[in-house]
Formats: sequence, C-alpha cells, structure tokens
Amino acid sequence: MIIVGELINSTREKIRKAVAERNSAFVMDIARQQEAAGATYLDVNAGAFAEAELENLEWMVKTVREASALPLCIDSPKPQALAHGCVVAGGRAELINSISGEKERFRAVLPIVKEHNTNVVALAMDDAGLLEDEEAIYAVACRLVESLLSEGIAAERIFLDPLVRPIGTNSAYGNLTLNILRRITAQYPDIHKICGLSNVSFGLPKRKIINRAFLVLAMASGLDAAILDPLDKPLMALLKGAEALLGRDDYCMNYIAAARSGEFEQLE
Amino acid sequence: MIIVGELINSTREKIRKAVAERNSAFVMDIARQQEAAGATYLDVNAGAFAEAELENLEWMVKTVREASALPLCIDSPKPQALAHGCVVAGGRAELINSISGEKERFRAVLPIVKEHNTNVVALAMDDAGLLEDEEAIYAVACRLVESLLSEGIAAERIFLDPLVRPIGTNSAYGNLTLNILRRITAQYPDIHKICGLSNVSFGLPKRKIINRAFLVLAMASGLDAAILDPLDKPLMALLKGAEALLGRDDYCMNYIAAARSGEFEQLE
Repeated sequence: MIIVGELINSTREKIRKAVAERNSAFVMDIARQQEAAGATYLDVNAGAFAEAELENLEWMVKTVREASALPLCIDSPKPQALAHGCVVAGGRAELINSISGEKERFRAVLPIVKEHNTNVVALAMDDAGLLEDEEAIYAVACRLVESLLSEGIAAERIFLDPLVRPIGTNSAYGNLTLNILRRITAQYPDIHKICGLSNVSFGLPKRKIINRAFLVLAMASGLDAAILDPLDKPLMALLKGAEALLGRDDYCMNYIAAARSGEFEQLE
Repeated sequence: MIIVGELINSTREKIRKAVAERNSAFVMDIARQQEAAGATYLDVNAGAFAEAELENLEWMVKTVREASALPLCIDSPKPQALAHGCVVAGGRAELINSISGEKERFRAVLPIVKEHNTNVVALAMDDAGLLEDEEAIYAVACRLVESLLSEGIAAERIFLDPLVRPIGTNSAYGNLTLNILRRITAQYPDIHKICGLSNVSFGLPKRKIINRAFLVLAMASGLDAAILDPLDKPLMALLKGAEALLGRDDYCMNYIAAARSGEFEQLE
C-alpha cells in the first residue's frame, strides 16, 4: 500500500498552532514519526491559513524537507498553492492533491502536473458537484481518467479518489464506494485508487472503528493507496493483515517483520 | 451476522478443567457472557475428552441450557456425539457442526440432521481430504450443497464452511477462500456461509490481527455467519462496523446502539 501520512495538516489545531508559532521542532517530529511508521508520502496542507496559505505552506514544506527525505504530497484546492508548493519542494513534491473534473480546476491544475511531472490525486467529481448515483460517479471518474490519459499523464501517475460518502446519511453509501472502486480497478488496472477514510464515518460515534473496517473493505475492492494517520497502530496493523490476506505480501514477510519490530506490541 | 460463540470448547484448557471438575458456575458464566456479547448460538464441544466425550457433552449441554436460552451448536466430528447432544438438548440444538462430503460421514450425519430438524455446518471437503485448488474446492462445495438440497434439507438450513487455509503457508490462500465464498454466494444466494477464523493465521504472530482483517474481508465476500469469540471486543466492533459499511445495518442503528451501550468504550 502507498500511504500518504495525513498529519501535517493545518486544519488540525496542534499543527495550525505549531506553524503559526514557527515551531519547527514539533512539525519535524511529526514528519519523522510518520516516516518511521511507514508513510510513503508526507501530506502538507496549509489550507486553514486562507490568505497566508502560500507563506505558511512554504515554511511547512521547507521544515518537513529538513526532517525527512520522503516525497511530499502538496495538498490544497488552490492551484496557486499547489504550484508554489511544487516550486518550494524543489522536485520532491511527487504527488499533488488534487485535480478534478471541474472545468476551471482541471484547466488550472493540469499545467502544474505537467510542469513539475508530479503524480496527481484525481477527485471523481465535476461541475455538477458531489454525485450520489453509482452510474453517474463511475461515468465522471472514467471521463476524468480519460482526460488525463489523453493529456499524456501516464496511468501510473493518476490516483483516482472516488470521494467517500458518509454511511450515516445513507446505508447504501458503503457499497456504493466499494462498487466504484471495483469497477475502476477492472476498467483501468494501471491507475492507482486512493481515498481518505474519515468521511465515511462522518456523524457516527467511535469513527476510527468504521474507518478501519472501511480501509480493509476498500483494499479488497482495489484500493492501493490511502491518506491516513500512520501513527494509528490498530489501523496500520489491520492494513498489514489485509495485505497479507489479499496476497500482496509474499510469505507474509512484511507482516512478520512488523510484528517482530514490536509494532503490534500493545495491541490486544 | 449469525455468531456462533466458540468459547465452550473442551480444547480450551480452562473449559476442559471446569468440565472435569463439574464447575458449573464457570461454564454458565461463559455462556451468559457470550449471550450478552451478542452470540446467536452457543457452541458446545467436548471433543477433548475422547472416550468420555458423550458423558461430558451431556453435562455441558445441560449446564449451558441452565444459563442461557440461546440455541446450541453441537460440535463434534463424531456422529454419535452429535446425535447424543441433540437428544440431550431437547430440541434446542439448532445447529450441528458438521457434515462433509466424506461418504461415511455424510451417510452417518444426514439422518441426525433430518431427525432433529437441525441446521448444519457443511465442510467443503470429501474423501480426497483437504484440497488446495480453487476449482476443486468449489466443485466439492457445490456437490455437497446439491446433495443436501436433494435430500430435502432447505437452503436456509445449510451453513457452508469453505475451510480456511493458513496464509502463512501460501500467500494465495487468502484470496482463494474469498473467491470460493464469492462464487458460492453467487451460485447459492440462499445458503449461509460460515467459517472459523483462526486457521487463517496459523503459524503467524499476533494472530488476532489477521483474524480480524479476515473476518471483514470474508463478510465482503458473502460470509454471513462466523464461529468466533464474541468477547473479543475489537473483533466485534469491526464486525459491526463492517455490517454498517456493507449496508447490512439500516441507518447504522445496530452500530450506534453498540457504541451507546459502552461496548466500544475501551477501544482506542
């Protein structure tokens, strides 16, 4: 699994504060912890700062780069911030989040993907907004993937995000997302499928339990990348168990190594 | 999900001792705890006593019946023990474990299923022993289901168990079992699919992690019954999360009720 460590996000109060205070030790420590826990990318999101987003993003990118050699995921709905993050990261912003089928956003973000040769998270939505119908979502996802491919973005650089809907508002939304993942996987075996987990549990108690079960289910439906908290030990343990069960961990070597390293030590 | 509470099993040292000492308070307490935790059936297995199996099974059945009104699952490879358990349970042995495609076993167990009108766990194996090839296992499973149906056992009374192979010996075994479950579900939508979880993790460290991830994956492939420890809180929490995600818990009411009752309280 490709793991985008989600913790360096200014919408999290502790991070917002640390960035505002230029507490580089705190931010660097989170970066190092996520790397040690198995992150593939480190997400950097300065969106909570609104007008000061670019300035704070620049500081965050430089600070994280000091702590870790992992590639970064520059995370903002604003094309200007994505571009600035890529420039500051100096060739190590290997993933940007995100492009979508929205005309203006597609037109603005595509040149950044091309110029900086990044991988890109592609959200399955267009100007019609967030869809609720499986056929409609699947059609939007396919159109977006086709658009990116026709622009010369290789399949391996595309991380399709089906956009998870909260099951608390409709009991059919879990199967809806799993079906979309399965169909996209069948149609485009070479693109990556990614999602954040937390929206699925919106409005429910003990959200982490739902998020963990959802990760395992989504992996079985083709998910091969996830934006998550790599410091959540029960979550990472289940992820490694699911990889072994799904035949994605030869001889369970990765699982066994994690167990031997003490990573599962405090888990019941 | 149909949950067969597995704890009253003489292969567990504490139970073997309690039965040998006729410690009814201990056995009754385990029965009550499993009922409170959401078991549908209580498994009773006296197999560890070999020659004294029938005598001990009788005491166990009577003791469990005193503590709980839940239907029992009489669990033994010996037809004689299954029959005796059914008689002693007096019409409350609603599931027996197990019949298989082995000729002698099929011939000996079928009359018990018919006479006591029980549901039955049907193991996907025959006289060729434990198979490793998906087509062969699927064929054996189908033959067994067809045999039971043609003997007048209604689909709803059949609990097919695909027999879980340990992923530690072959990385393909996880997907193998999941594929069988999917194919059986497609072919026979009205029969139940059941399995024990623990064999999947045989030989690996921190087996509960693998077992939990496997339960979630198997549920997505059609499993609707499981033989498990209902007192394993993280396992039961994931099970309820998976039901909500798979659209088997309208408005997440069961999940929300479990959270409100404090069942998830100590979970991180």
